[in-house]
Amino acid sequence: MKNILLTIEYDGTNFHGWQIQPDVRTVQGELESVLSAVCHSEIRLAGLSRTDAGVHAYGQRASFCGDFSIPADRLMLAANDRLGAGRLSAAARPGDVRITAAAEVPEGFHARHDAAGKKYIYRMLTAERPDVFLRDKYWQIAERPDMDAMAAAAKHLIGRHDFNAFRAAGGKEPETTVRTVFGLAVYAGRDGAGRQTSTLEITGDGFLYNMVRIIAGTLFQAGTGKRPPESVGAAIASKDRGHAGPTAPPQGLYLAEAYYNEEEMQAAAGRRYDAVFSRSTTMLKT
Amino acid sequence: MKNILLTIEYDGTNFHGWQIQPDVRTVQGELESVLSAVCHSEIRLAGLSRTDAGVHAYGQRASFCGDFSIPADRLMLAANDRLGAGRLSAAARPGDVRITAAAEVPEGFHARHDAAGKKYIYRMLTAERPDVFLRDKYWQIAERPDMDAMAAAAKHLIGRHDFNAFRAAGGKEPETTVRTVFGLAVYAGRDGAGRQTSTLEITGDGFLYNMVRIIAGTLFQAGTGKRPPESVGAAIASKDRGHAGPTAPPQGLYLAEAYYNEEEMQAAAGRRYDAVFSRSTTMLKT
Repeated sequence: MKNILLTIEYDGTNFHGWQIQPDVRTVQGELESVLSAVCHSEIRLAGLSRTDAGVHAYGQRASFCGDFSIPADRLMLAANDRLGAGRLSAAARPGDVRITAAAEVPEGFHARHDAAGKKYIYRMLTAERPDVFLRDKYWQIAERPDMDAMAAAAKHLIGRHDFNAFRAAGGKEPETTVRTVFGLAVYAGRDGAGRQTSTLEITGDGFLYNMVRIIAGTLFQAGTGKRPPESVGAAIASKDRGHAGPTAPPQGLYLAEAYYNEEEMQAAAGRRYDAVFSRSTTMLKT
Repeated sequence: MKNILLTIEYDGTNFHGWQIQPDVRTVQGELESVLSAVCHSEIRLAGLSRTDAGVHAYGQRASFCGDFSIPADRLMLAANDRLGAGRLSAAARPGDVRITAAAEVPEGFHARHDAAGKKYIYRMLTAERPDVFLRDKYWQIAERPDMDAMAAAAKHLIGRHDFNAFRAAGGKEPETTVRTVFGLAVYAGRDGAGRQTSTLEITGDGFLYNMVRIIAGTLFQAGTGKRPPESVGAAIASKDRGHAGPTAPPQGLYLAEAYYNEEEMQAAAGRRYDAVFSRSTTMLKT
């Protein structure tokens, strides 16, 4: 019996999210179908995060076990070929999901249960007018948020809190709404056309349903003077969804990385994921 | 009776091309439906270029006439609101087609018949592995083309030639296959992740079916040593499609600009459209 851990990147635009559902295209569904063909047996994936429709991933994780002979690295190549994400061929448009790593892990290891935490990125673009070419990759906003105000608001979110005010209804009811945010960085950059990008990087041991998008919507309010930064502390204390900001749209959200031990996560919380030229998967110069 | 000339930009990914067809989403179909609603009368557009599925536009043009009272600028705003491409709203994802200008033109003016020429851009990205996020915006290639070889090959295409060798079967049979290329620039740049982009800008009085994509495929061959640059002259002389290169894929192609007089086109032929930070619609730092 083998147990394999995959790292997966995808453009979430044309998926109805991660989780497999009948009659719609999902990342899990697409991968299970391809992996089942490659392994000649029915594969069920245990995914790290059930990303919503339109949400992207640089580093989603999923584990699966089975009784197949193909080694992990060859399995990745074969699956990527079927996903249209293998080698670049002269004519084809690449696929929108790609396995970037596959490794054999000890029996019993589980991509979600064993995760110590993860990092999400949320991207905003300040545009004078709607940009048709970037509609799926950013939350496009008319305002230029004040980074100092956003950072001041963000400070309140760092640490161990009951984040019930930052949780959408729907999704599985959590056992607890207490989570720890280890890092929340806010920084400005520029896109290729010189427009301001505002990026959040948030690292935590777990996130409630829509928590990152509600945090993005709340920090945006602080950055555009629609709420004082210190009101974020009060919103947390209230445990009342009505006191946090609106839910930012899905297309700005990227699941960046997952961590399987505390030290790794702590190091990542203080490190900027999205540094200039460091990511081969980003179209941004930040 | 009013006559209006529109300038239109679109991300061609989710359109079955420009031309209206039953049961599929096309740019012309989408615009005619929205404009008919705004003008309270049935609008038929005369488009400049019948771009194929997956091909993008920064500056498509289309004209239409009708007996409506709404002024051109208000018509644009109302149409863009319906297209989801008006003002940026907090929650929405922008639409994928947007009118960027609307002007009243003299009676009898026609967006296609009166065009003196246009400029297309073709974009390639050299990537070590397929990039899922840019799949719809570039021709992703594994090789790093030699710009000098591409430029040497490009020189043969400039001027007045019978371009029958650079014409795909299909489309309307042209009266003549003679066209004039006024400018063909080839340059390298970098995307946000530091990878090489190779960009063609081609200005001409008209283009045969798939002509720009066949030119891109042919110059790519020259740039990667698969054909000597001077073979391009022989390919033109042959008038035989078999002597030109393959047709590059649609997602790298952008209709950039149209010109309605010769001087304007001549000036544009010598000017780089895609200069750093000059285009608000590009995600590229070239």
